[in-house]
Amino acid sequence: MSVEVGVIMGSKSDWETMKLACDVLDELQIPYEKKVVSAHRTPDLMFEYAETAAARGLKVIIAGAGGAAHLPGMVAAKTILPVIGVPVKSSNLNGLDSLLSIVQMPGGIPVATVAIGNAGGTNAGLLAGQMIGAFNPDVQARVQARRDRIQREVLESSETL
Amino acid sequence: MSVEVGVIMGSKSDWETMKLACDVLDELQIPYEKKVVSAHRTPDLMFEYAETAAARGLKVIIAGAGGAAHLPGMVAAKTILPVIGVPVKSSNLNGLDSLLSIVQMPGGIPVATVAIGNAGGTNAGLLAGQMIGAFNPDVQARVQARRDRIQREVLESSETL
Amino acid sequence: MSVEVGVIMGSKSDWETMKLACDVLDELQIPYEKKVVSAHRTPDLMFEYAETAAARGLKVIIAGAGGAAHLPGMVAAKTILPVIGVPVKSSNLNGLDSLLSIVQMPGGIPVATVAIGNAGGTNAGLLAGQMIGAFNPDVQARVQARRDRIQREVLESSETL
Amino acid sequence: MSVEVGVIMGSKSDWETMKLACDVLDELQIPYEKKVVSAHRTPDLMFEYAETAAARGLKVIIAGAGGAAHLPGMVAAKTILPVIGVPVKSSNLNGLDSLLSIVQMPGGIPVATVAIGNAGGTNAGLLAGQMIGAFNPDVQARVQARRDRIQREVLESSETL
Amino acid sequence: MSVEVGVIMGSKSDWETMKLACDVLDELQIPYEKKVVSAHRTPDLMFEYAETAAARGLKVIIAGAGGAAHLPGMVAAKTILPVIGVPVKSSNLNGLDSLLSIVQMPGGIPVATVAIGNAGGTNAGLLAGQMIGAFNPDVQARVQARRDRIQREVLESSETL
Amino acid sequence: MSVEVGVIMGSKSDWETMKLACDVLDELQIPYEKKVVSAHRTPDLMFEYAETAAARGLKVIIAGAGGAAHLPGMVAAKTILPVIGVPVKSSNLNGLDSLLSIVQMPGGIPVATVAIGNAGGTNAGLLAGQMIGAFNPDVQARVQARRDRIQREVLESSETL
Amino acid sequence: MSVEVGVIMGSKSDWETMKLACDVLDELQIPYEKKVVSAHRTPDLMFEYAETAAARGLKVIIAGAGGAAHLPGMVAAKTILPVIGVPVKSSNLNGLDSLLSIVQMPGGIPVATVAIGNAGGTNAGLLAGQMIGAFNPDVQARVQARRDRIQREVLESSETL
Amino acid sequence: MSVEVGVIMGSKSDWETMKLACDVLDELQIPYEKKVVSAHRTPDLMFEYAETAAARGLKVIIAGAGGAAHLPGMVAAKTILPVIGVPVKSSNLNGLDSLLSIVQMPGGIPVATVAIGNAGGTNAGLLAGQMIGAFNPDVQARVQARRDRIQREVLESSETL
Repeated sequence: MSVEVGVIMGSKSDWETMKLACDVLDELQIPYEKKVVSAHRTPDLMFEYAETAAARGLKVIIAGAGGAAHLPGMVAAKTILPVIGVPVKSSNLNGLDSLLSIVQMPGGIPVATVAIGNAGGTNAGLLAGQMIGAFNPDVQARVQARRDRIQREVLESSETL
Repeated sequence: MSVEVGVIMGSKSDWETMKLACDVLDELQIPYEKKVVSAHRTPDLMFEYAETAAARGLKVIIAGAGGAAHLPGMVAAKTILPVIGVPVKSSNLNGLDSLLSIVQMPGGIPVATVAIGNAGGTNAGLLAGQMIGAFNPDVQARVQARRDRIQREVLESSETL
Repeated sequence: MSVEVGVIMGSKSDWETMKLACDVLDELQIPYEKKVVSAHRTPDLMFEYAETAAARGLKVIIAGAGGAAHLPGMVAAKTILPVIGVPVKSSNLNGLDSLLSIVQMPGGIPVATVAIGNAGGTNAGLLAGQMIGAFNPDVQARVQARRDRIQREVLESSETL
Repeated sequence: MSVEVGVIMGSKSDWETMKLACDVLDELQIPYEKKVVSAHRTPDLMFEYAETAAARGLKVIIAGAGGAAHLPGMVAAKTILPVIGVPVKSSNLNGLDSLLSIVQMPGGIPVATVAIGNAGGTNAGLLAGQMIGAFNPDVQARVQARRDRIQREVLESSETL
Repeated sequence: MSVEVGVIMGSKSDWETMKLACDVLDELQIPYEKKVVSAHRTPDLMFEYAETAAARGLKVIIAGAGGAAHLPGMVAAKTILPVIGVPVKSSNLNGLDSLLSIVQMPGGIPVATVAIGNAGGTNAGLLAGQMIGAFNPDVQARVQARRDRIQREVLESSETL
Repeated sequence: MSVEVGVIMGSKSDWETMKLACDVLDELQIPYEKKVVSAHRTPDLMFEYAETAAARGLKVIIAGAGGAAHLPGMVAAKTILPVIGVPVKSSNLNGLDSLLSIVQMPGGIPVATVAIGNAGGTNAGLLAGQMIGAFNPDVQARVQARRDRIQREVLESSETL
Repeated sequence: MSVEVGVIMGSKSDWETMKLACDVLDELQIPYEKKVVSAHRTPDLMFEYAETAAARGLKVIIAGAGGAAHLPGMVAAKTILPVIGVPVKSSNLNGLDSLLSIVQMPGGIPVATVAIGNAGGTNAGLLAGQMIGAFNPDVQARVQARRDRIQREVLESSETL
Repeated sequence: MSVEVGVIMGSKSDWETMKLACDVLDELQIPYEKKVVSAHRTPDLMFEYAETAAARGLKVIIAGAGGAAHLPGMVAAKTILPVIGVPVKSSNLNGLDSLLSIVQMPGGIPVATVAIGNAGGTNAGLLAGQMIGAFNPDVQARVQARRDRIQREVLESSETL
């Protein structure tokens, strides 16, 4: 089965957050690839990655970065695929800089931005699953099953207060 | 051709921004419906809308709201479809409250958040187009054509500085 | 004696803060119930809880949540009772996102918002006590007694500088 | 019928926002009084007002102020009644200073804070109505009627997009 | 020699910061008194303290508080003496709430605000010394001597890089 | 009668705000001088001004500036007199940059910071008056008289709601 | 004389701010070129521009952009020349997003960031002049002459207060 | 070989960050000097340092400071050389105050601002190297070599995810 999601990140230090996206993709049985691609340190690799993604059969790209986080927006500028941006928590401004650098894209080139940090990592995987699931009933069923499970966990947690 | 995108907003005053999403959907020839659905003033309608969206054949929901903007996140909680959230500019905090209320979703229920205000309106339409385009070559070609046109406009604008 | 206050929270991890509200209610001898009710993960339970609260005899609901904190506002949309919102401290933005998501409600559906974090937990219990105390002299006397005690503690603390 | 709500504000310039609270109280047929009481310019009047409020039969106080907005918190320190704080929009920081000065009360003395500016003015009146309505079915019925009307308005507005 | 500076704080937990002001006053040999005076928990004591300060011979009041920090501004409203406000670091918003609550006073009642946290504690003592020093050459000479010492320390520190 | 207060500002465009300080000093009959002194464009003049201020008999310096507002802090570094800093409203960040640049001084060199913008202009004049008034009963009496007048104005304004 | 500075901007709407940089370069007699180069809409042009800049003899690049402003950082990633970034004022967040997107670059790829908006436009031109002037006495002399003129203007403005 | 870069900092506690700039200068084989120069505690030293820097042959000054960080801007006011400002992370506001105090310079006196904290320390050294490298091919080659090395490290890190 061909790779459907590309998970990239600006630095290996983003892996802690981005691994959560991969965990969800594993759970949803969506084939993906993962890679460190830095907008600022490997710009040509980034452009090549983005440019070839659609032709290689990817359906969605998940890109995580922190600080002046240009990776998601620049990848979005070079591909016609939907790009999900994960604002990784930054060391000084708690990810507010990451968030604004990713979400405030100008009209014309959107980035589907999720929450700062680990919640965003998990949700990037789920959002990719929901995008694919809208056209793939099997994936959609697995997203639904994950939700049902989480709902049960909430209900049970209430009894332990 | 059946409706593929639902465009909803918390108040009629959000229409100026949300109309831009509809304009893009028109341009991309993606059938959509539009509706005022308020999380706080018509909560039951909101739940019903979200709950039935997938079964009615929608592939994506675009939801715009301002201030304590709960509409995108609550719709996302009640549908398995991907939800794009548009933080409408608020009167006092310039949409920073709208942005944080929409993007900072907990792990489990993502909202694909775009930029505050009109850039976000336009980009919500485009993002929906890119999600659908990943599975529909005709739509993807139209997204590409729009990009090519915008690129030409930038190149031409440089000559008039 | 019937339950007068409902204390709900979006996640079991909010319990540390919300327990402080319960401690105050215990001290004021106001009967209450407590429950994990997640806006995003158990939306139907949330609606049912809010919808039936007034009929079950509750006088006030206290709802705590963090991040894109939709629980207090959505409960407020589904009940005619006053709702007190507690912005739980979030991991990345220190609860500023929780605060704005709770307090910036549109005209029509108010949430009585208290401070971020533990001070807010305690004050939610006290505010509920003051609302009920305005119509119940016994409760009001206990609120007054608590204040008198705290005032004495401040006066005494000054001697130990 | 005796006065049940006291509406006070730090400056006459706050009247535009605070009038909206009074409009709602009129609509809900709740008797109220209104007054300019400045924490900084008439501190003794403020203390006297707060100290005598419960004995004069008030059930709730609504206090609006902007900037370093101390009125709601200081009135709360001097009365056992619930105090609703309205952060009036300030000229330089858009009311963020007003909001933090009002909502971030220390454990022991809560202020029920509503949204910045005019939405907060309206919601302060409604919140007072909901607090009283929890013990007065007639008032509660009027709050419900107002909600039903607003819900109809939203539904109708959707047809004019 | 009579007391010239009153050092007050909203809570004993502010002592760590406020002690730094006292240390400076000790060094400058300015007689002072110190006390816990809470705006919200001991409002009457606060008013009495402020009201009698000038008559008791004080020349300056230093007031420290955190969160919705009303103590400096309310004391300023009740005394004709200059009041120095120290924004104590708060647990959730890092003292930004304390700062805005203290510095954004309306025209008519100033508070001389210093930096958030410990730098502010030290500087409050120094500022009081400079105010008194403007009319007392001995104190002014000691402020100058302290500056000379600090300058030497900076020069020496450079050699250890 | 010799000049007691120096009113300086970083740019002529600050005059609108700083004039309010001068108006108060006129009302309190405190002799003052006023001057444009730019930290960045006339740094030598600034140092000379600050260095000679105490010897020329000044008791207080009021310095206003906007943006990266270095004037108050740098003057404070070069004089033993108390320096009042007025954060002038800046064109892009509403004076938040001015405020933080002025108030966040390191331990050792305080600046007595007042509110952003026009309220700060007025309060700088008053604070200078209160500092001088602590040692000059005539000035103190005029500060008191101004307060009494303002209090009357508040009381009267209440009747016109 | 060959072009030494490249002035680029993300959109023609940035020209109002970026023209100020060009005005300074004209005044300093530094040859420059100007162009609209959009990171998101003309990414290939941007890379080509940056890649060839040093070989074409440029010494500095000035890049202005607003919102999620990726142009300065991405150009910096593709050239060995120093890049000056101008955060253009954005419509919703007043340029705070532009500033953080430009200045918070990761270790390895710096951008020399100047102030938000028009002050930044002017200062970008001056900074380029100072960089070149450090190696070109004629340019340095013109920068000095401009400073002397501005200093005289400040001194004269003081007489018109 | 004569010193080309001056590295100064407001306090010895800034050394941890500023050392990173020195490490880069060592790597690029650019001769530099380092010194603690405090704007507020050693203002005369600061002026003398800045005033003589160009004549002593320096080409660039790197200045780091935290909080109300006036050192970079004041040095820039006293030298015709380009000044790079490093916003050192502050203890309470995470360096946001440092950043705004450094970057928001008025038109006329630029500071080339880099990122908050350690990334800024490293990048200040690199930016100085790029400025000098634009006129010195050997230095430019070393900057390029450092980039090539970092690029390789990114590529290799990807294999260890």
